[in-house]
Amino acid sequence: MKLAELLGTELPLVQSPMAGVQGSRLAIAVCGAGGLGSLPCAMLSPERIAEEIRAIRAATDRPFNLNFFCHATPRFDAARDARWRESLAAVHAEFGIDPASLGTGAGRNPFDATAAEIVESLRPRVVSFHFGLPEPALLARVKAAGAIVMGSATTVDEARWLESRGADVIIAQGLEAGGHRGHFLSDDLTEQLGLFALLPQVVAAVKRPVIAAGGIADAACVRAALALGASGVQAGTAFLRTPEADTGPLHRAALAGDEARHTALSNLFTGRPARGIVNRFLREHGPMSELVPEFPLATAASAPLRAAAERRGSGDFSALWSGQNASGARPVPAAEIIRALAAGLPG
Amino acid sequence: MKLAELLGTELPLVQSPMAGVQGSRLAIAVCGAGGLGSLPCAMLSPERIAEEIRAIRAATDRPFNLNFFCHATPRFDAARDARWRESLAAVHAEFGIDPASLGTGAGRNPFDATAAEIVESLRPRVVSFHFGLPEPALLARVKAAGAIVMGSATTVDEARWLESRGADVIIAQGLEAGGHRGHFLSDDLTEQLGLFALLPQVVAAVKRPVIAAGGIADAACVRAALALGASGVQAGTAFLRTPEADTGPLHRAALAGDEARHTALSNLFTGRPARGIVNRFLREHGPMSELVPEFPLATAASAPLRAAAERRGSGDFSALWSGQNASGARPVPAAEIIRALAAGLPG
Repeated sequence: MKLAELLGTELPLVQSPMAGVQGSRLAIAVCGAGGLGSLPCAMLSPERIAEEIRAIRAATDRPFNLNFFCHATPRFDAARDARWRESLAAVHAEFGIDPASLGTGAGRNPFDATAAEIVESLRPRVVSFHFGLPEPALLARVKAAGAIVMGSATTVDEARWLESRGADVIIAQGLEAGGHRGHFLSDDLTEQLGLFALLPQVVAAVKRPVIAAGGIADAACVRAALALGASGVQAGTAFLRTPEADTGPLHRAALAGDEARHTALSNLFTGRPARGIVNRFLREHGPMSELVPEFPLATAASAPLRAAAERRGSGDFSALWSGQNASGARPVPAAEIIRALAAGLPG
Repeated sequence: MKLAELLGTELPLVQSPMAGVQGSRLAIAVCGAGGLGSLPCAMLSPERIAEEIRAIRAATDRPFNLNFFCHATPRFDAARDARWRESLAAVHAEFGIDPASLGTGAGRNPFDATAAEIVESLRPRVVSFHFGLPEPALLARVKAAGAIVMGSATTVDEARWLESRGADVIIAQGLEAGGHRGHFLSDDLTEQLGLFALLPQVVAAVKRPVIAAGGIADAACVRAALALGASGVQAGTAFLRTPEADTGPLHRAALAGDEARHTALSNLFTGRPARGIVNRFLREHGPMSELVPEFPLATAASAPLRAAAERRGSGDFSALWSGQNASGARPVPAAEIIRALAAGLPG
């Protein structure tokens, strides 16, 4: 079956779920333009997820994708947390942040029984997972609810693992991709592959359709991904400057500037490596740091810093998520981004 | 002008120069099959270069490429060298290597006046450079000798720099590529891009033809590279198991095995980051180490280790150069690799 048929969309184009910078508005716009809109659920309460789904359904009867994280919730390590906060003491002081005021962070919720209930009651056509898959009993509930399951692979081994555990579609996430790396079998970043090397090797290793992600900026990239065996593509960065995204003004400006040419994987914001534009925070404390608490506990110390710097008009401590090719991120409606990508699909 | 016309070849396919694992035999086979064969000169004496060129010319009248490195020769730092040797003391002892016996290493010669004389007298059609370009006066001599000049870019800035200084062809070297990274404007590895992101941005930034390198394994990769705007491709790893390459048996076995799926950039062998298959040396001492002497001085301590381990039948300390996609490296004649790649060119 063709990927678009499987997803129930007109086009084999998926909008990457991007927690924190988009909600139902972007998903609705993408669905309306013939792509698969995605709602990132990792930072939303169950009530918010239900509201957002209602908003999508009020606007379109087309299929959409709910995205969840599948990390194990870490145990709080007070000593590690203290070391990390200590290393930030000078910048906390610079921005007038009282270390005693730091909370426990926004967090990211892994897919759990409550999330499974949402899927069962609201029945999205597609459910995608980052950082692996939920435990088998929970995954079985998602599949029993009729959802097409997509999982992110950053290596050939991960692609095989996802397929063997029931993923219907494999997303090959090249090293170029913005935001969190989806790796889950190993945290050795040297195992992560550029899309040009990852995609054909994943296509050769699995039978399921493969979606190419990472660096997809325009029609030429879509053609190249299809040439390498992809059944469709997923783009994220390309949507970050659309009016339907919730990207903040400092983030939008960075995406539009020369600084977007230099991104790096950094664990400073959440505890897991994620690609964003290099700013002062990454230069002075990373981009990777061994002091950082486990995902997602790192947000406790970094989020207030980000907020304080942004109040002063600075993106120096913001998570400026971006892939390695921001040239497709234009300040135009999401439907126009979809049209630009769709020009790379075979007539 | 089309790239193949510029290079004087039948096909816009370049065999990557791979110092240490190939010489005139591979270049001759590639030229004979319609591609551009390359002779890596960085580890050859002027006399050997002349001999190799005579061997090529005796076998074919087709154009070929001479490749040179353009690094600055470092000053020997005794303290740094001592620290590095100290860190290797245990493995030197394990393999019975007397630290006092260690020489100064094989070294790598940068392009200099002697090399310019060779170019002037032997007049290769194409000369390519890694790590930037020679100083302007030397480069002017190469161009005055009628050679087409190619340079490797790992970032958009490097591509612009090469073009502005006279390179006729830009090789966009994606992060997937095996062997030495060609970066020269910055040694911050986070600036290095996957080919999927690098290639279209370089194509957009320069007017000169762009050759795609890194992860090019088969016809599908060639199609994808052309879709992203490349005028041709360069492949290296794909030739490493051909009978015409000088790749050693342990290296060939590693390329054929599952371990080839895990490569890393490592500076352990020469002092500069180069991509190879992860083995014991990389796992225990790197893959990147701050103790390593500057390129190319690191070879002094690592080469004897490699030789000793290989005598025991182990590739644990060998430089197992490979890109991130070794699936195109088959034990077939180089002409068959060229034919496989050429299948991706437009009819």
